[in-house]
Amino acid sequence: MSYASKISNDVCDDVAGFRLVHVDSTWSRQPEDCKCAEGRVSDAKIYESSTEDGVTWTVVSPIVFTYRVIQSDRLLDPSNDTLMFGHISDPMEIQAIKNNGKVMKRFIVIDQTVHDLYGSQVAAYFEARGVTYKILHLPTTEENKSMALVTSILEEVHKFGIGRRTEPIIAIGGGVCLDIAGLAASLYRRRTPYIRVPTTLLAYIDASVGAKTGVNFANCKNKLGSYIPPVATFLDRTFLCTLPRRHISNGMAEMLKNEGRHLLDSRFQPRINENVHMDAASVSTRLAIETMLEELAPNLWEDDLDRLVDFGHIISPELEMKVLPALLHGEAVNIDMAFMVYVAHERGFLTEEEKRRIIVCMQSLELPVWHSDCTLDLVQKSLTDRLKHSGGLLRMPLPTALGRARIFNDIEDSIVCRAFKRWCKEHCETAMKPQSHNGKA
Amino acid sequence: MSYASKISNDVCDDVAGFRLVHVDSTWSRQPEDCKCAEGRVSDAKIYESSTEDGVTWTVVSPIVFTYRVIQSDRLLDPSNDTLMFGHISDPMEIQAIKNNGKVMKRFIVIDQTVHDLYGSQVAAYFEARGVTYKILHLPTTEENKSMALVTSILEEVHKFGIGRRTEPIIAIGGGVCLDIAGLAASLYRRRTPYIRVPTTLLAYIDASVGAKTGVNFANCKNKLGSYIPPVATFLDRTFLCTLPRRHISNGMAEMLKNEGRHLLDSRFQPRINENVHMDAASVSTRLAIETMLEELAPNLWEDDLDRLVDFGHIISPELEMKVLPALLHGEAVNIDMAFMVYVAHERGFLTEEEKRRIIVCMQSLELPVWHSDCTLDLVQKSLTDRLKHSGGLLRMPLPTALGRARIFNDIEDSIVCRAFKRWCKEHCETAMKPQSHNGKA
Repeated sequence: MSYASKISNDVCDDVAGFRLVHVDSTWSRQPEDCKCAEGRVSDAKIYESSTEDGVTWTVVSPIVFTYRVIQSDRLLDPSNDTLMFGHISDPMEIQAIKNNGKVMKRFIVIDQTVHDLYGSQVAAYFEARGVTYKILHLPTTEENKSMALVTSILEEVHKFGIGRRTEPIIAIGGGVCLDIAGLAASLYRRRTPYIRVPTTLLAYIDASVGAKTGVNFANCKNKLGSYIPPVATFLDRTFLCTLPRRHISNGMAEMLKNEGRHLLDSRFQPRINENVHMDAASVSTRLAIETMLEELAPNLWEDDLDRLVDFGHIISPELEMKVLPALLHGEAVNIDMAFMVYVAHERGFLTEEEKRRIIVCMQSLELPVWHSDCTLDLVQKSLTDRLKHSGGLLRMPLPTALGRARIFNDIEDSIVCRAFKRWCKEHCETAMKPQSHNGKA
Repeated sequence: MSYASKISNDVCDDVAGFRLVHVDSTWSRQPEDCKCAEGRVSDAKIYESSTEDGVTWTVVSPIVFTYRVIQSDRLLDPSNDTLMFGHISDPMEIQAIKNNGKVMKRFIVIDQTVHDLYGSQVAAYFEARGVTYKILHLPTTEENKSMALVTSILEEVHKFGIGRRTEPIIAIGGGVCLDIAGLAASLYRRRTPYIRVPTTLLAYIDASVGAKTGVNFANCKNKLGSYIPPVATFLDRTFLCTLPRRHISNGMAEMLKNEGRHLLDSRFQPRINENVHMDAASVSTRLAIETMLEELAPNLWEDDLDRLVDFGHIISPELEMKVLPALLHGEAVNIDMAFMVYVAHERGFLTEEEKRRIIVCMQSLELPVWHSDCTLDLVQKSLTDRLKHSGGLLRMPLPTALGRARIFNDIEDSIVCRAFKRWCKEHCETAMKPQSHNGKA
């Protein structure tokens, strides 16, 4: 296994390796080369070395996260088991819970707006299932995304009381709601299972899939948080029906590679008579989710810093916080990506025609491609911060052709400056006109 | 691998398994049975199944924690590298940092009392090493162990600024200090490396070794926290010289199995002329740490609930919080263990003579073996809570002979009641007399 070979590279010769064997309710170490194991053997290892000065133990302990992402229609239909049992993979376990007849409890954190639209359906679902439930509705906006809101969730969870291992907290809402509730769950009793139910397109294809939770702190985006994945994420596109058009565009920014104008118009619902799993919305959301899972699963805790999915996330966090609440997350991401397209063009990776096609595509999705508060200062500060926190390398994802990208560390400041000038020149005037995305949704 | 076999047991037949291969800066999935891998293969897996209703993806993603526990004397001696580089296992990496000549930064969280005793030495160490440092001293008592104190650490860390991956936060103090600073570090940027330097005997053999961080919440002990191990723990017994005698006893409660009266008298320092690594204190602390590591490494996140190290931790959390600050943690643990000895005796596991010997041993270590606030109500409430949060089983660790223990689920309430009566009868009167451990240390 990779961690075993890694440690033996790092440590010197006079190191004793031990594996751990479970005998008589207790774990005991045995020399690695001893073949006398009786009982269960752990994947964990302990290495020990002694010097004149003292002893060094190295503990290598793998934790395996297993979580499910389930796409299911009619989540709030009382006949649909998913919301109750979708997080359990073993059908025997589900049957045992159904048979034992104990009243179950569920604590639900829901965004205020989503509650106005779907709260009665959520309540009806749990009523019909005979569950003791508490629905906590909160104004989960980017401005409120703070430790204070996490604490208020924790107080209510504690008052309500849930079984730490068997009664997951359910979060229903956009990315902010899922991030806040996820952090509360990951703190409560050091880890309480939770479920994500995204209700915005952006959360559907982004926040729902990964392990990250978080809140803003000291005016910095997601500065506090954890990497604790939900036990399950349930995806139901019918929530997207009630989204304002601006929020559809917002989500499209994160999945720009794969879809067309049709998705914006259709609000991600299949057309009548269209094969329900082959419509553009199904195909593209599925592709977006599968792409995210591919990038996340091998790098759940972001130990590898070279992440192509960081495209659009280099200068956007700073910009989003600076102009709060003017830009939605996806809009800030799109402005970042648009700028990076100019950097890629300036660096010679994209032709003028390729650059133009990408920008036109963004605009046709009704996404902003420039912002007056995205100054050269802000760009340069963001790049300096990234250099500092990414192990001294820039790790800048840039498009190298339509639908292709790579990570670069050698983008000079002069390139960035020239790209910035051209970007402003081509968009400053048009952008200054009032546009739909600057209004409230 | 265990998680691979687990998932294939849980899921049904029509499941497609994928492994993840790294090609061209990006991870792509490949069918598990495909042998066409080029590039790095991840330990993570994705399983996919489709039904009429939709699609289910199961993500299995292992995270490997590697941390070092280093016993080293003279930690604060400027010629000792440990405090600066002990968390790095690769000597080449250390040399590279020394050679590059960049000024390093370190943020230190230290308990107020420890700061009074050792603060100037800590400052002198970092001065001598040419490090830019900030020492934050805080009153890290059980009463202050709250999210508010975590937030005040986070504010200072943010103001000071540290490199997220390369400049670990250093916590110096007792268990409360290490738990609070550990939680702050695990939240900052979703995970900032931190180092534990225990200065009490209890922290030395207990809090220092594991992965748990935490604060009290809603008057419940460690109700909020995380399972994020430090990158390293540095153990230096010289800190124990300045401990009040009561705090030595306090630590002994957690390591009762292995030591004698001598350790209390010696304050865990070797006798003159004694072989420095063979004295009772060295042997017993080492044994205590190795026992803890054996239990922790295979069960870092406590997914397995059958933990013998829970001995003494069934009713003590409730008791400790109830009488705060009258009892030190180890004292509350000892009272819990003493009661469990009576339960084991009542259940027929221990003879009257064995029971007496254990209690006398505890008393000779100047530890309390009974407390008037430890009522039958409190005992029964604690057992009910445990039943609720341990998957419906009691999982009660009980001694079955001197130095032996097992986990039991079938201890009836009548046994508990009889044990409680006898325990009170034998200790109520003696305990009511004023004793040294009830006074302030």
